[in-house]
Amino acid sequence: MKKIINDPRHVVREMLEGSVSRSPGQALLSNQNVVVRKAYDGNATVAILSGGGSGHEPAHAGYVGDGMLAAAIAGDVFTSPSVDAVLAAIRTVGGTAGAVLVVKNYTGDRLNFGLAAEMARSEGIPVEIVTVADDVALRDTVAADKRRGIAGTVLIHKVIGAAAAAGRSVTDVAALGRRAATGLGSMGVALGACTVPAAGRPGFKLGDTEIEYGLGIHGEPGVRKGPIAPADGLAETVLSAIIDDLALARGQTVALLVNGLGATPPMELDILLRGALHVLHGRGINVARAWCGNFLTALDMPGASLSLLKVDDELLGLLDAPASAPAWPGGGQLNDAPIRQVADAPAEAAVTTSSTPAGEAVRRAAHAAAQALLAAEDELTDLDAKAGDGDLGASLRRGAEAVLALPAHAWHSPESALRRMADAMRQAIGGSSGPFYATGLMRAARELTGVAEPTPRQWHAALQAAADAIADLGGAKAGDRTMLDALYPAADAYKAALDANLAPFEALEALHLAATRGAEDTATLHARAGRAAYLGDRAMGIADGGAVAVAIWMGALR
Amino acid sequence: MKKIINDPRHVVREMLEGSVSRSPGQALLSNQNVVVRKAYDGNATVAILSGGGSGHEPAHAGYVGDGMLAAAIAGDVFTSPSVDAVLAAIRTVGGTAGAVLVVKNYTGDRLNFGLAAEMARSEGIPVEIVTVADDVALRDTVAADKRRGIAGTVLIHKVIGAAAAAGRSVTDVAALGRRAATGLGSMGVALGACTVPAAGRPGFKLGDTEIEYGLGIHGEPGVRKGPIAPADGLAETVLSAIIDDLALARGQTVALLVNGLGATPPMELDILLRGALHVLHGRGINVARAWCGNFLTALDMPGASLSLLKVDDELLGLLDAPASAPAWPGGGQLNDAPIRQVADAPAEAAVTTSSTPAGEAVRRAAHAAAQALLAAEDELTDLDAKAGDGDLGASLRRGAEAVLALPAHAWHSPESALRRMADAMRQAIGGSSGPFYATGLMRAARELTGVAEPTPRQWHAALQAAADAIADLGGAKAGDRTMLDALYPAADAYKAALDANLAPFEALEALHLAATRGAEDTATLHARAGRAAYLGDRAMGIADGGAVAVAIWMGALR
Repeated sequence: MKKIINDPRHVVREMLEGSVSRSPGQALLSNQNVVVRKAYDGNATVAILSGGGSGHEPAHAGYVGDGMLAAAIAGDVFTSPSVDAVLAAIRTVGGTAGAVLVVKNYTGDRLNFGLAAEMARSEGIPVEIVTVADDVALRDTVAADKRRGIAGTVLIHKVIGAAAAAGRSVTDVAALGRRAATGLGSMGVALGACTVPAAGRPGFKLGDTEIEYGLGIHGEPGVRKGPIAPADGLAETVLSAIIDDLALARGQTVALLVNGLGATPPMELDILLRGALHVLHGRGINVARAWCGNFLTALDMPGASLSLLKVDDELLGLLDAPASAPAWPGGGQLNDAPIRQVADAPAEAAVTTSSTPAGEAVRRAAHAAAQALLAAEDELTDLDAKAGDGDLGASLRRGAEAVLALPAHAWHSPESALRRMADAMRQAIGGSSGPFYATGLMRAARELTGVAEPTPRQWHAALQAAADAIADLGGAKAGDRTMLDALYPAADAYKAALDANLAPFEALEALHLAATRGAEDTATLHARAGRAAYLGDRAMGIADGGAVAVAIWMGALR
Repeated sequence: MKKIINDPRHVVREMLEGSVSRSPGQALLSNQNVVVRKAYDGNATVAILSGGGSGHEPAHAGYVGDGMLAAAIAGDVFTSPSVDAVLAAIRTVGGTAGAVLVVKNYTGDRLNFGLAAEMARSEGIPVEIVTVADDVALRDTVAADKRRGIAGTVLIHKVIGAAAAAGRSVTDVAALGRRAATGLGSMGVALGACTVPAAGRPGFKLGDTEIEYGLGIHGEPGVRKGPIAPADGLAETVLSAIIDDLALARGQTVALLVNGLGATPPMELDILLRGALHVLHGRGINVARAWCGNFLTALDMPGASLSLLKVDDELLGLLDAPASAPAWPGGGQLNDAPIRQVADAPAEAAVTTSSTPAGEAVRRAAHAAAQALLAAEDELTDLDAKAGDGDLGASLRRGAEAVLALPAHAWHSPESALRRMADAMRQAIGGSSGPFYATGLMRAARELTGVAEPTPRQWHAALQAAADAIADLGGAKAGDRTMLDALYPAADAYKAALDANLAPFEALEALHLAATRGAEDTATLHARAGRAAYLGDRAMGIADGGAVAVAIWMGALR
């Protein structure tokens, strides 16, 4: 058994200590596994109490708070709490306003809560019991009053908790709870069994594609096994049973609870919710509220239950009333406009087709660079195969082809040319080279925004900005054995050449030389970024393909 | 693979449709898996965006709401979203106030979010990126800037979301996020692997008692395997790594996040929280806030992560600021008085030792009834063994012995006698007979409250009330093959005898006769309650032991 627990005998107390420690409105009784609301006045409003065996968290302690429960009684895992524990809870929170006990319909709970209620009455506290028997799975095999109480119970907590907070009398609150319970139905499916900590092994076995329909929340098997079905089919099967049982007709209004059984990821619950809403919509049933999450679990059982509660304006108001219980999520309203239609991207602004001289120069340089990369495809593929995944040559070929295919108007200005090259590289190249080149080109374009004829110093600033953008994007820096080890030395050499007033041709020569040296030096570097990082020292002695590619296209710029 | 899904290829879209349908403040873009806040004004406040591969629900769409994210971008399961999707999100919510992208430190996310940011900047939207790399598991194997981003990211969403809502500038919000991220550390343990829907099988295997320490949230194995340890030991191991990494010293203050990885039941998370609080308390580290739940999962992985965020007053204020995102629980305050000491039960009031004549009559009748039950133990055991679990004879023997052992002062009055018999039966008998007898006796006592010398009609009312209480408790009625099938006929016959002015002795004779006939007739009844209900027709022909027991002790009342 793998569980995040300490001693299996102490799971309940330790779990309650954990949950109460993060719930400042609650206190745990020193001598019983009972969680009570702090500063609760049982003479002012009716105390709502619930409880039962543990293993159903966040039920029931998670529902102790303003507007819901005044106290929760936690038995051992899947075991009814003792009469003494229930009585201690009633004595602690119950006063002259009286108490209502919510009891899920299991023999042990009925007897222990019932006897405790009788004892509390003898002590002068008016106590009523509301029994919840919402499991419709057993509707063909047992009488309605013998059904189990399961997750729908949480909605009963909410409505009568709100009624109690509103100051209604104990008999009124109990009558309301009983009325609500008659309009409540639930049913679950299990994809596997749960493991009771003290037992250490799952309660039942299922085949690889088999699930249980109509399981109980104590790990008991369902009413039948069947093959796993799509989520929408599960929703249909479960809701059909509930709708039939509640005799729900078109036009009636319900609240929906999608409940995870403990080991069901949130993704699956929301897919089930979607399916359930479709089914109900198709049946013409109005869903006024819906909640989705872990409300009443069965330890680590994978699976879910659906509950429907027939609602009217009174019950809706009570469901909507504020509650501060830690496990009650509030909300529940549905989204009447869940999809935002997105307009197509605006048509591109009309472009000038006549190039500027600077734009034409960029076109010539870019075409030369692209041709150089095409010619170097095999060399780059070889290098990358030794210290990467071998896709660099092909990636840059696709990028080069895309640049060569750009229409004439793309080269209108240096800014436009860089921007369109960025788009072309981004769209043509998957993997990481595309984003790196595209980001560098875009940052360079931004640097040259509105500059019709960039000076060499402005071109240097654009190159420097591009290298910084690439460094930012990958989280790499010089010396990490990446394309930066060609870009940064090249930018530095270019700037030094300009500072020394070298001719443009000589400055580009210096740029290329520095890039080539930088690329060669990567063979001596330990990889810290990119895929070569995973190879450790196996990449030593081999130059980085990304840096070599930079040196290659820079060589063509002259 | 057993999952509550439809087509594995559509899990992300369907999941988002589900979660958005129950989140009225959100909308899902029609052409991208992007969830945005409705009615968000990107010119008024900085838009916070987050996202990444799916499978981490409720991250990230669950954090879209006032005070947290303006948009969330969902890639395929464990796959970075496309640049186009990120850009669509920025375009939808970003305005002149700018945008901050929260990026978990994975290459794909860095590249795609980074490039989209660059493109958005080119379109005039100021965009900053905050990279989160909180996983300390890899602290010995990779540089700090190569670490993965995991669950602590949610706390970054919260603090910068609150800062954005407060109207702070885009650079200010980004700087705050980077500062917070440097004081953030997380680490997880996995009890098993997760299953990617499109793959259909778990990503790694673990032995029966083996767990992974320092796993990734994409199903990647951890940094080491080890044996399962108690929850407190797991907390110690994980927190030691984080404390060491953050160089946390005594007296420093943190916020704690206990995060389930998708298939971890709430019980286990609260036990881990308890252990974590103990460890931190022992290290002298102040825990100012704590949250516990599923915040950033890894599909259906069983396991949990712990995160610590160094906090100061500014960060605490931002953590506490209101937020309406569906998956943000609010709160986080700890409980400074989690345990309520319960006083011992008040000492019993002094009792009068001299019995009333009526009390003495009850004593004689009760002793006679108890002796009759003792004599009938074997008979009752036999009956119950045929249609129950065979414990009835022994149970009632223990009850009878407890009644015979009551002290003299117990019999002071009829009310006192019935009450003390109820206590004795409740304490002496487990199973269901104890609660039934105790409840009946208590209800009868309540009927006779303050009556020194009950009339026969008052005794009848007490008997009727007792039978009704027993029926209520078990949810059974006449004809269900229970003790009620002796009690109700007896009560009716007794009343008829009183109506006919029979002598008390004759009335008791009628009572006994009716009880006996009622008990005998149960042999012809189909069981609807009690354990015999599970036997179906196998109980036919055998009288109900509980009803026979009633007839036996009633026979002794004369």
